[in-house]
Amino acid sequence: MKIIVDCMSGDNAPEAIVEGAIAGANAHNADVLLVGDENAIRKIIREKGLPELRVSIYHTPDDPVTMEDDPSAVMKEKKDSSMAVSLRLLAEGKGDAVVSAGNTGALFTGATLIVRRIKGIRRAAIGAIVPLGKPILIVDAGANVDVLPEHLVDFAHMGELYMKKVAMVKNPKVGLLNNGEEEHKGTELYVATHKLLKDSDINFIGNVEGKDVPAGVADIVVCDGFTGNILLKTCEGFGRFIKSTLSDLFKKNAKTKVGALFVMDSIKDLKKKMDPSEHGGAPFLGISKPVFKAHGSSDAKSISRCILQAKNYARSGIINDFAELASKK
Amino acid sequence: MKIIVDCMSGDNAPEAIVEGAIAGANAHNADVLLVGDENAIRKIIREKGLPELRVSIYHTPDDPVTMEDDPSAVMKEKKDSSMAVSLRLLAEGKGDAVVSAGNTGALFTGATLIVRRIKGIRRAAIGAIVPLGKPILIVDAGANVDVLPEHLVDFAHMGELYMKKVAMVKNPKVGLLNNGEEEHKGTELYVATHKLLKDSDINFIGNVEGKDVPAGVADIVVCDGFTGNILLKTCEGFGRFIKSTLSDLFKKNAKTKVGALFVMDSIKDLKKKMDPSEHGGAPFLGISKPVFKAHGSSDAKSISRCILQAKNYARSGIINDFAELASKK
Repeated sequence: MKIIVDCMSGDNAPEAIVEGAIAGANAHNADVLLVGDENAIRKIIREKGLPELRVSIYHTPDDPVTMEDDPSAVMKEKKDSSMAVSLRLLAEGKGDAVVSAGNTGALFTGATLIVRRIKGIRRAAIGAIVPLGKPILIVDAGANVDVLPEHLVDFAHMGELYMKKVAMVKNPKVGLLNNGEEEHKGTELYVATHKLLKDSDINFIGNVEGKDVPAGVADIVVCDGFTGNILLKTCEGFGRFIKSTLSDLFKKNAKTKVGALFVMDSIKDLKKKMDPSEHGGAPFLGISKPVFKAHGSSDAKSISRCILQAKNYARSGIINDFAELASKK
Repeated sequence: MKIIVDCMSGDNAPEAIVEGAIAGANAHNADVLLVGDENAIRKIIREKGLPELRVSIYHTPDDPVTMEDDPSAVMKEKKDSSMAVSLRLLAEGKGDAVVSAGNTGALFTGATLIVRRIKGIRRAAIGAIVPLGKPILIVDAGANVDVLPEHLVDFAHMGELYMKKVAMVKNPKVGLLNNGEEEHKGTELYVATHKLLKDSDINFIGNVEGKDVPAGVADIVVCDGFTGNILLKTCEGFGRFIKSTLSDLFKKNAKTKVGALFVMDSIKDLKKKMDPSEHGGAPFLGISKPVFKAHGSSDAKSISRCILQAKNYARSGIINDFAELASKK
């Protein structure tokens, strides 16, 4: 098992990426192919004294994809970037999965163009885990602004299999995000999708409302990418809101500062629970090989976790399951 | 100034509604017309020893609108319900505003059918205040699942005027909810709306993402009712999530219980800040007279607050401003 790691993308690249990838390789029994500026990578390995046993390096010139690059143009304009090369190496079979902490739009477009979708899946989707008490998968979290009901059904199928076989959730529940519980609720798209999901063999629990997401009513929340992006970012925004609210609460005065000493450990647990980078990466569901988007602010620990996720995804065989599902349609 | 109060709708009706309405009348210098079962209302006034000076009662038979009633049918099927009668009294000029804690869909449909929209406003919208650190207005929070760009521009105009002249926010900022900052982001509807808002005289700050909502980047968040409902309910869900998370945090063990004693007051402040009923009601923007939806779980205090809001709305003259805006189109 070899995981291809785009070392030059992300807020903390390349240091944290290289360190996390090598730590992940050793902790989770996988090889890593580090893609990026070889000199920079070798320097980090040397200076941090990292083990080189499971590591190989693929050199790319130092012109990484940035957050400002236009997703639709970047794979042509930056053909030799660490991101584009990582995806090409995956397409060519030089590794089993790609992990990148870079520009989501560029990575998704690149995955679609270079690695390509599974035959029969007309839209791939971003599956993002919400940083709440338990892992909840939002699919699509932002790739497809305009979709058809049958695309949402594909997302539901793939999300269900992912949560079952990669996130190891038993009997995961699939909910359709909507503005009410009743099946006639929502736009035409959502009314039609509800009907299709109800008639499918998916473990469909019906419509879920916004309030049901933090309550953990569904394990998989299915929606179009416009709504999913807003839902995901609102959840992340609340994570930050809670952290800063708690800080303010305890910093208020001398009395509250004393209180903080008594609950310090619990607060640390909570902050950890709500940290998006603690939940690893977002799988691109429907792409013919595993591609993971790590959070832009990923540190070494969260990259290491992504290595494990990518390995589990590649090993799970669910991409074959998706392909089989698609071929039956 | 006379506020018409639907006394038979809401989780805590009629007790909390009657008590809150009378308290609001006295605290905020307004008359109230209590609509509902006269015997029940008189009994509450008598048993609680409430003052009757500013109070009149309009009797309706005891068959209130429930949360289960179908919004599209209820105004015909329950013509004599306290909700339908309240709206009719408003349309007939027997009062200056309506406050109801009942079924949102039924109240909105009733307001549109009985009180009617402002001439030239093709869609009325629900303007809901999010329970965060500062008041943020989501418009539309759930009335219109399918809209056109010009409807969203109306919502922006009305939301801006409401926050300026009723919520008394200086230079409120209007943001368009979207899945990215760039103006080409979102569905066709959102791309077209962005262009119209940019060319308008609205204090438009551009697209806002989900994470910007809890951060308070915009004072008014404009969106379609499908997305707005999901956003509002997600925010409310997080309010509950934070409360229960804090409770769990402090109940964990003996040490954390001691910590709780030191921060009790701050936590109470926070819970209050995040309580939807602390923020009063949701105005129906675009209806020709003020109609307020109080939160279903409203207690007497929040009904009293709605009386003040309704009075301020009626007195502000902004419905004339809306009509003038609409006539210029």
